[in-house]
Amino acid sequence: MEKFEVTILGCGCALPTIRHFGASQVVNIHEKLFMVDCAEATQLQFRRNKLKFNHLGHIFITHLHGDHFFGAIGIISTMSLLGRTSTLHVWGPIGIEQALQPQINIFCQGMTFNVEIHPLDTKKHQMIFEDRSVEIYTIPLRHRVPCCGYLFKEKPLLPHIRRDMIDAYNIPISQINNIKLGMDYICPDGTVIPHTRLTTPADSPRSFAYCSDTTYKPDIIPYIENVDLLYHEATFTDEEEKEANRYFHSTASQAATIARDCHARQLCIGHFSSRYDDESIFLEQARTIFPNTVLAKENLLIPLTIEH
Amino acid sequence: MEKFEVTILGCGCALPTIRHFGASQVVNIHEKLFMVDCAEATQLQFRRNKLKFNHLGHIFITHLHGDHFFGAIGIISTMSLLGRTSTLHVWGPIGIEQALQPQINIFCQGMTFNVEIHPLDTKKHQMIFEDRSVEIYTIPLRHRVPCCGYLFKEKPLLPHIRRDMIDAYNIPISQINNIKLGMDYICPDGTVIPHTRLTTPADSPRSFAYCSDTTYKPDIIPYIENVDLLYHEATFTDEEEKEANRYFHSTASQAATIARDCHARQLCIGHFSSRYDDESIFLEQARTIFPNTVLAKENLLIPLTIEH
Repeated sequence: MEKFEVTILGCGCALPTIRHFGASQVVNIHEKLFMVDCAEATQLQFRRNKLKFNHLGHIFITHLHGDHFFGAIGIISTMSLLGRTSTLHVWGPIGIEQALQPQINIFCQGMTFNVEIHPLDTKKHQMIFEDRSVEIYTIPLRHRVPCCGYLFKEKPLLPHIRRDMIDAYNIPISQINNIKLGMDYICPDGTVIPHTRLTTPADSPRSFAYCSDTTYKPDIIPYIENVDLLYHEATFTDEEEKEANRYFHSTASQAATIARDCHARQLCIGHFSSRYDDESIFLEQARTIFPNTVLAKENLLIPLTIEH
Repeated sequence: MEKFEVTILGCGCALPTIRHFGASQVVNIHEKLFMVDCAEATQLQFRRNKLKFNHLGHIFITHLHGDHFFGAIGIISTMSLLGRTSTLHVWGPIGIEQALQPQINIFCQGMTFNVEIHPLDTKKHQMIFEDRSVEIYTIPLRHRVPCCGYLFKEKPLLPHIRRDMIDAYNIPISQINNIKLGMDYICPDGTVIPHTRLTTPADSPRSFAYCSDTTYKPDIIPYIENVDLLYHEATFTDEEEKEANRYFHSTASQAATIARDCHARQLCIGHFSSRYDDESIFLEQARTIFPNTVLAKENLLIPLTIEH
């Protein structure tokens, strides 16, 4: 199966602690890397997880708070020192250009590659990028500053070829792609073998939604319906719901409620406030509502698997 | 003895590695903290070493390369989240205001304290700060961009009081500070006890010089004559002297030569290029010229002790 996996580089909150790095994740879709958020020290975590700078084409920033953004200039500067040539795309709320471009101008003289900055209207749910493997959409969130999440939707995959049938009919390799694309095979004697006989159905395309930082916002549910993996912030435990509301964050149960109501397959919660030493309470509270929940932690790799 | 010690938070070079953080050190002089350089992730290292944000009054930036500066906005932002009220002074080459102030404006809204930015002429050797414990001077260095080192000179200390004599003459505590300041003590019967009889000589004031990044520059020697501790960059081993010249860096032997010729008591070398897996070669080469050399490493604490 083609790769679709999420690596958590950091899942802490605004105040860095010894325990957590600031927010950043890397989504690997068919060996292309997409970064979501880029806190200070993200480049160190990126290296620690043996990810490849050359495979990273896009950085998506959810909002312009330091704990989601301060690492961007560092990773860009490093890629320039490494002699990168391919364009890097940086996406984020309106204002991101003013936050990033002057830093690039000052610190990346003799830059070896282009950085294309794409300011986004965070209030819209829209497709902002697609290639042959994936479509990427914004998810409007509600925080103290303009903020959006990101939805990664794998495009429909090709069916699997049946090795046994290929052998049985002695079909040349040159025909395999055509068969996957839906063409029947015509044998040298004129017999037509329908492509459905030569393949098993494609895997279902998978999807991942990243929702942080945000207050509880159930109107995002239609956008993230049936996601295979939902990452949703849970800055506070249920006991601190007032604090959560006040700072436009969510509680563990609110994150789990979103996961349940959008019929996610799996939930990962993170962005824990630094006030908590023991994070197991988050897990208990979330699992009461949505059992298939895991706690984010640094260097956790979550593969998006398919149930057959 | 009053505290004078240096903690190394990071001693890597431009390209961050798993092994090293970017450049930053904290100088503790009589419990006041002075930071020199502030690479990405410095605030994490600062916490890891259990240093106190409230004791940090000054950040000195040597030059505007990311591996010496990218952590400044993060630490400032964190101190604001922590509700700091006292002014923070940030010193650095001309241009530092343009590099830092816009970031503060964007990311530190509702800032709880003032940041005073002091642009410096890096070509001058001058005293830029003093308080009752220390004088701080710039050291003109030569790098690819304007760059200066910093010299921390402890002010003359008061003599030590002789407990035995105080007891013998039954001198009240209220007089002790006067005696330290050089006043003789007059006994109730009119006898004059000279202050020199009541004290032992003060410890010699200590000094620390931070010289990074720079090409070999022997004309700094008069400024750093007799320093107790010299931190000097050694980005390359002696075999790569050409590379060192090309990028305006120093070799291990060049750093040691500066230490020898300025009659430093101790040398610490760092800023090792990421190309070296084994840094012991730096130590060997430097010790050939200046035996009292140590290798910088993260979280190394170097107390400046006095030989009596």
